[in-house]
Amino acid sequence: MKSVVIHSAKDLRIEDRPTEEPGVDQVEIRMATGGICGSDLHYYNHGGFGSVRLKEPMVLGHEVAGHITRLGEGVTGLEVGQLVAVSPSRPCHDCAYCSESKYSHCLNMRFYGSAMPFPHIQGAFREVLVADATQCAPADGLSAAEAAAAEPLAVCLHAARRAGDLLGRRVLVTGCGPIGLLCVIVARRSGAAEIVATDLSDFTLRIARRNGADSTVNVGQTPERMAAFEASKGYFDVLFECTGVAQTLAGGIAALRPGGTVMQLGLGGDMQIPVQTMTTKEIQLRGSFRFHEEFFTGVELMQRNLIDVKPLITNTVELDDSESGFRLASDRNQAVKVQIAF
Amino acid sequence: MKSVVIHSAKDLRIEDRPTEEPGVDQVEIRMATGGICGSDLHYYNHGGFGSVRLKEPMVLGHEVAGHITRLGEGVTGLEVGQLVAVSPSRPCHDCAYCSESKYSHCLNMRFYGSAMPFPHIQGAFREVLVADATQCAPADGLSAAEAAAAEPLAVCLHAARRAGDLLGRRVLVTGCGPIGLLCVIVARRSGAAEIVATDLSDFTLRIARRNGADSTVNVGQTPERMAAFEASKGYFDVLFECTGVAQTLAGGIAALRPGGTVMQLGLGGDMQIPVQTMTTKEIQLRGSFRFHEEFFTGVELMQRNLIDVKPLITNTVELDDSESGFRLASDRNQAVKVQIAF
Amino acid sequence: MKSVVIHSAKDLRIEDRPTEEPGVDQVEIRMATGGICGSDLHYYNHGGFGSVRLKEPMVLGHEVAGHITRLGEGVTGLEVGQLVAVSPSRPCHDCAYCSESKYSHCLNMRFYGSAMPFPHIQGAFREVLVADATQCAPADGLSAAEAAAAEPLAVCLHAARRAGDLLGRRVLVTGCGPIGLLCVIVARRSGAAEIVATDLSDFTLRIARRNGADSTVNVGQTPERMAAFEASKGYFDVLFECTGVAQTLAGGIAALRPGGTVMQLGLGGDMQIPVQTMTTKEIQLRGSFRFHEEFFTGVELMQRNLIDVKPLITNTVELDDSESGFRLASDRNQAVKVQIAF
Amino acid sequence: MKSVVIHSAKDLRIEDRPTEEPGVDQVEIRMATGGICGSDLHYYNHGGFGSVRLKEPMVLGHEVAGHITRLGEGVTGLEVGQLVAVSPSRPCHDCAYCSESKYSHCLNMRFYGSAMPFPHIQGAFREVLVADATQCAPADGLSAAEAAAAEPLAVCLHAARRAGDLLGRRVLVTGCGPIGLLCVIVARRSGAAEIVATDLSDFTLRIARRNGADSTVNVGQTPERMAAFEASKGYFDVLFECTGVAQTLAGGIAALRPGGTVMQLGLGGDMQIPVQTMTTKEIQLRGSFRFHEEFFTGVELMQRNLIDVKPLITNTVELDDSESGFRLASDRNQAVKVQIAF
Repeated sequence: MKSVVIHSAKDLRIEDRPTEEPGVDQVEIRMATGGICGSDLHYYNHGGFGSVRLKEPMVLGHEVAGHITRLGEGVTGLEVGQLVAVSPSRPCHDCAYCSESKYSHCLNMRFYGSAMPFPHIQGAFREVLVADATQCAPADGLSAAEAAAAEPLAVCLHAARRAGDLLGRRVLVTGCGPIGLLCVIVARRSGAAEIVATDLSDFTLRIARRNGADSTVNVGQTPERMAAFEASKGYFDVLFECTGVAQTLAGGIAALRPGGTVMQLGLGGDMQIPVQTMTTKEIQLRGSFRFHEEFFTGVELMQRNLIDVKPLITNTVELDDSESGFRLASDRNQAVKVQIAF
Repeated sequence: MKSVVIHSAKDLRIEDRPTEEPGVDQVEIRMATGGICGSDLHYYNHGGFGSVRLKEPMVLGHEVAGHITRLGEGVTGLEVGQLVAVSPSRPCHDCAYCSESKYSHCLNMRFYGSAMPFPHIQGAFREVLVADATQCAPADGLSAAEAAAAEPLAVCLHAARRAGDLLGRRVLVTGCGPIGLLCVIVARRSGAAEIVATDLSDFTLRIARRNGADSTVNVGQTPERMAAFEASKGYFDVLFECTGVAQTLAGGIAALRPGGTVMQLGLGGDMQIPVQTMTTKEIQLRGSFRFHEEFFTGVELMQRNLIDVKPLITNTVELDDSESGFRLASDRNQAVKVQIAF
Repeated sequence: MKSVVIHSAKDLRIEDRPTEEPGVDQVEIRMATGGICGSDLHYYNHGGFGSVRLKEPMVLGHEVAGHITRLGEGVTGLEVGQLVAVSPSRPCHDCAYCSESKYSHCLNMRFYGSAMPFPHIQGAFREVLVADATQCAPADGLSAAEAAAAEPLAVCLHAARRAGDLLGRRVLVTGCGPIGLLCVIVARRSGAAEIVATDLSDFTLRIARRNGADSTVNVGQTPERMAAFEASKGYFDVLFECTGVAQTLAGGIAALRPGGTVMQLGLGGDMQIPVQTMTTKEIQLRGSFRFHEEFFTGVELMQRNLIDVKPLITNTVELDDSESGFRLASDRNQAVKVQIAF
Repeated sequence: MKSVVIHSAKDLRIEDRPTEEPGVDQVEIRMATGGICGSDLHYYNHGGFGSVRLKEPMVLGHEVAGHITRLGEGVTGLEVGQLVAVSPSRPCHDCAYCSESKYSHCLNMRFYGSAMPFPHIQGAFREVLVADATQCAPADGLSAAEAAAAEPLAVCLHAARRAGDLLGRRVLVTGCGPIGLLCVIVARRSGAAEIVATDLSDFTLRIARRNGADSTVNVGQTPERMAAFEASKGYFDVLFECTGVAQTLAGGIAALRPGGTVMQLGLGGDMQIPVQTMTTKEIQLRGSFRFHEEFFTGVELMQRNLIDVKPLITNTVELDDSESGFRLASDRNQAVKVQIAF
């Protein structure tokens, strides 16, 4: 079967890989759609990020959905032919953190398409995938494209749950890539009274306004518009920080009311931030990383028409054209979420 | 000016009362609309409830909106002619609970139309009301009928905030009077994945389904349908209990998952409840009473078209016909929210 | 080996039972001490409680400690000869609630000495016990008597954690059996500013005062002393309710400040309680049931001399005298915690 | 009356200032003791900190206690001759944040001895102080020295309450000046299972060990000892960061378990911190600033012998020797809390 393999920065290849047999409690899936994520782009453009670097060829991809083709022994509740969204999260269920249900912090996590351990954890951009039945969320009624968006949606649902009560609150979202835009959608779904989104790209800000943002600020063009939010010690209750840029985070902290919350989703290494202001305004910054049961919640919310991710899927490419998809996804003035059709 | 005065059970009169002058930081309001609440109905039908009994004539009403006709000295931010929703909550801002911002528990509360202290606190069903400017939420863009619904909406927003995270949760609402229906609407706005509502009246259950409930159960006709929710120790994460009926609360507790939350809004005196089941399932029951800043939040959410209360306002009567409105509001098979037009 | 078997109310026998071999990841323990718990007493005095009734002979006991005599294959971190406190909680680690780390609500729980399922789960009052290594908390430095108290201590640590912040708070503890007294000790350890304890027995109230209660009220003799706590809407922030008596719970609710918390530990079936007062004062009642990781926390806190349970262990009987221990433990004017020495 | 006035860095003078008359609801206090705080030292050593700079002479001091000498009109509950701890916090009780009881964030705060607004808010190191009755916590049974420590104690109680449940938790305290040491004491009082404290001074680390720290690390001498806490993704549940030094905060974050909490008390301007690690480990950093009702809680906990601050008061100087006190307090190898006796 074909798979999308990164060898080093800008060296992306479509390669044949052997298929596996589904074991006990596993299923075989004919992959339908795979979404390109920011971390995939980091491997493609830079060969990694921070201290996480490619040391061997690795199949990319962790936002995937497909149709079940075979059921391993013991599998119940799933059917051949059924569309499933596949969670890329595979905690060990046995370590200290798993036993506290902090699955994202599993000491032995095998998350698809991750160069963190060595040998690397191979990803899911492949024609055929064997997965545990427990990774599969039945996605009846959704398109494969929507189902493949369950993963980034879960990231944002997890962050929203950790943000505390959003009903009637004022929310700032900095950065309108796929994660930022999904934060806009989820904050609206959670009852936020007002949502302001910022970015450097008018293209994504337009999509933000059409999908729940009450207003937007292009901080490259009119940074002065953020200053109004700093009066009387701040305006927003919650900031979803999706850029990982120190200056943006600092600006967001200045715009938060005392006692406000930063949900930090953007990954930016070490950052110079106004800790003293955070202290005197009693701001809390909460890291938010991945998800667990929110993967299944996200699929359900889409099935119930309570969340619509379709407007974010701006481009779809064929498997053999995968590299053009990676290039497209790297340009925020042209694309939000780019998916590969297998 | 005319006002709606209760003398004793079933003795409701339209009487003349003298008008007042607006003092410093006060405004004079020409009342436009007043909604009849469950407590108004208790005074009308029974002369009170529990140990709270009428001891002197009392102007009823605390769900009101009107147009400003005069500004007292020092008032800023409000204009003559402006529609305002008027919060009936008047805490002292000086007692131990006010200083902790637990305003609903003020030791000297003067909530409109309340027979709790003696002399009673006169209510707001009157042609002209003098109120503090801080009680007034500008309601530009809303109808007076919507503005007058800000009070019961605030009750439900307050309960939803105290319920903890609702995003993706399963919610049961027992009792589909105005408060129960507003809980349905607010739970939907807060991102609940599934909402089931129960009542004895098909009339109100139909309104529940049209305004956010995924399904409904008429527990008078098909009580057995609740049993399905008790499998595997329970189904729902949160119960908004709006009946104050012990049997209903007990059924709701049986349908909650371990660790679930009951938001208790219904007032039913002492109740026989399954405390042992609450203990072994680690259910929490949280009383929810009135509101504070949620009054202003509710007006804003209506103005932003994030909450729509109009479908609940089923009937409007003229001031001189007030008593027919009280009779109508007492019949849940005919009416949900009945308002008086002044 | 000998074990303590209940056949029906008042029919307690010392019987021989066969021993088992420790399997993989298991240990064999020579039991040293077993504490008699309230549920053991219910089986002994009444043959059960509520709908939980004895249907076959059952070994009693779930508060136990002993010395390891053999290690099964694969066991690490434990040694032959070592004193261990043995957690009686054996969740399946596989059901929906286990996967959320709500282990106390496991759908397949096998808690020692419990007649809830049939066949019953046999208990741990026996000379030799084979247990999973993960149930064992090394108790080096403690006496076996202290180690055997880890279980009820864990119940109270779990309740205290669920009670929210206790630092500087005013705490009421109703009922001074072993659980109530441990709640006094734990509340003091957690920084409570003032602790008032109530009971009907001067014997246990004296122990309460010596172990952390600032004052006590014998509600059988001077019930009027509780009335003082009802002024200005209430005095206490938190109530640990350990009686399961409706009147006591109602009195506690009256003595709580608005927004206060009841931790319900006492088991009393259905109870008539002032739900309307809970609603208008926005009291929250939280059921608290068993424990999980708090078992290990409790052993550590005793080892670090941060919790001292020794004053509660008022009586110790020999295995062959077990029944006299059950009779003694049933009289709160003579005994608090009674233990059996194996 | 004499007062301690800072004119610029190292220019501290004892000056005569006029006395005031106590107004309605005010009291006149003969000051007994004043503790020198870190911010006082910043004014003395550097003329300010960050953007807060001296622009006019200012009486220093905000940790004070004394005896009431006169009662203004309307004062109840206080007596002439009574020792009181005086809270330096004077919020307006009228702004948006005061109405949410976020008094520390009052838009019009007049905190003693603060150069933040201009004209500066004059401080309380003076022989006679006129204060609002509501600022005064009766301190019967305490020494004036203890009462004057209520203010820094309140800072740490506030932080501990915001840290979430500490019972049975592992706590790291970085920086053992007065605030760090009080965090050690408060964490112990709150039921922490294990407390590790770090500093560069063996003098203060010895005091930490004598007052609740289980162990200490001199990070100037044996920094490698911190590395052990980084295994398996971290060891501590909570970090009280009291240095404001970026490197120390970064080290603490590495030593926290996933999901752990940093309470940030140290003020250090902008800091380079490992935000990416905070995100992937889902660490939360919460600024903690000043206090409100905890001032009164702290006095009560000292009165009840639940907190003992006396071991931290290492030095006392006479009013005329104030400057020697400032020099002494600047040397962490010789002094912890230095107080002035008036």
